[in-house]
Amino acid sequence: MTDKVNKLGLAQFEVRDYECDMQGIVNNAVYQNYLEHARHQFLKEKGLDFAEITKHGIHLVLIKAELEYKRSLQSGDTFYIQTRVERESKLKLAFHQHLFRAQDDQLMLNAKMIVTSTTTDGRPVVFKQADLLLTQ
Amino acid sequence: MTDKVNKLGLAQFEVRDYECDMQGIVNNAVYQNYLEHARHQFLKEKGLDFAEITKHGIHLVLIKAELEYKRSLQSGDTFYIQTRVERESKLKLAFHQHLFRAQDDQLMLNAKMIVTSTTTDGRPVVFKQADLLLTQ
Amino acid sequence: MTDKVNKLGLAQFEVRDYECDMQGIVNNAVYQNYLEHARHQFLKEKGLDFAEITKHGIHLVLIKAELEYKRSLQSGDTFYIQTRVERESKLKLAFHQHLFRAQDDQLMLNAKMIVTSTTTDGRPVVFKQADLLLTQ
Amino acid sequence: MTDKVNKLGLAQFEVRDYECDMQGIVNNAVYQNYLEHARHQFLKEKGLDFAEITKHGIHLVLIKAELEYKRSLQSGDTFYIQTRVERESKLKLAFHQHLFRAQDDQLMLNAKMIVTSTTTDGRPVVFKQADLLLTQ
Repeated sequence: MTDKVNKLGLAQFEVRDYECDMQGIVNNAVYQNYLEHARHQFLKEKGLDFAEITKHGIHLVLIKAELEYKRSLQSGDTFYIQTRVERESKLKLAFHQHLFRAQDDQLMLNAKMIVTSTTTDGRPVVFKQADLLLTQ
Repeated sequence: MTDKVNKLGLAQFEVRDYECDMQGIVNNAVYQNYLEHARHQFLKEKGLDFAEITKHGIHLVLIKAELEYKRSLQSGDTFYIQTRVERESKLKLAFHQHLFRAQDDQLMLNAKMIVTSTTTDGRPVVFKQADLLLTQ
Repeated sequence: MTDKVNKLGLAQFEVRDYECDMQGIVNNAVYQNYLEHARHQFLKEKGLDFAEITKHGIHLVLIKAELEYKRSLQSGDTFYIQTRVERESKLKLAFHQHLFRAQDDQLMLNAKMIVTSTTTDGRPVVFKQADLLLTQ
Repeated sequence: MTDKVNKLGLAQFEVRDYECDMQGIVNNAVYQNYLEHARHQFLKEKGLDFAEITKHGIHLVLIKAELEYKRSLQSGDTFYIQTRVERESKLKLAFHQHLFRAQDDQLMLNAKMIVTSTTTDGRPVVFKQADLLLTQ
């Protein structure tokens, strides 16, 4: 893993065998779990906590997900996810996420995840702390 | 549910409570599980079986997923998924999938899932039975 | 499936391929998902709703699980779960659950799940509607 | 975490938000995922690999699980699992597993998991490397 990578928001993982399916590779849906966990870790690094935000009545809601599966993770692999955030509009944030296999820094998956903020009953609301997340 | 809908490839589901997260709604990753199950059901209706195909050394591999989350499923909801397939290229199929809540036929999610076929060791291979899946 | 079986609390399922692991069989943890869903279906048949109960501040909490895995479910299998409830003590209920493969009524799994009721902050509380669940 | 604990087979974890359900706590079934991952980590420490063993036609199969849920893990918690193995019979191993919350070494869950070994088609077979796992 290069030093350049370590300066960005990074979450470290290892594949768990129950995440693999009958093809012997990590099931596609599991990558969304990884990406979500990396986003929540990213929030934490910035001083925010997803569970706390939810308790305070702000729901951060995924409205669009684009995932490009490049290679398949297997049992025993370790990997890391880079996350950076850009503002798409007043109410929307774009999380750009890249998943790399640790042993060879091979790119496994690219994702662009668009998140918006709503109240508990689904009305749009400005997530005031979003500025903390933006990449300079 | 309208009759028009019933003529297409359709998989029926109900939300299970363990699929809901701390926001009280179905977790985003779970929709990919639903969509995969609907694709495998669709294969079965056409006389194909995913586990059998895998055992014969053909891996149907998701290479791109685009999901638009319109509304959130909750505990107690029942829903159905429409699936249709178009050929993208010699080696790629596009699964167009739409998820509707059953009680009001409300559109909850749109997805376009690009699948390709490889051998067990990852080399491209033509999936000869693909024609069975195509929408006329 | 025999008529005798149909008179009891019964939930119907089919195996989804993403529930299978690299051994090609349903992963052990997934059975707990099935059993939970069958318990919540059982509650519904008795006029109770798990999500509603939770919203009203009563947490039904699993405190002990005993599972005997007899045979393994595979891709393509359909199955059903019998659930019956006995009172263990003032605060504890025992859910006895049996999972059968549908094609041959073969017993796949036995489970005894002990549930207690607490307030949101974890103090014991009597779940007054428990009597609705008890087998005569 | 005490030094005494560190000498035993130990797997470290943190709760991921997608593992929590609508009660805001880790779903019961997820603990079986944690325990399985800890068992596979334990095998690795002893020089064995679950995926490799499976590829060589030996299936390590859980036949009985007893779980005592003492307290509930929540979003943000970190925890560790102790695993030790005893022989139950010629063909059966007992994995004794204890899950502790890291911040206060509080016991959250006890488990006794009985595993046996079979061939791919389900016949009993002696798992010769089992001796490597036994606690002295």
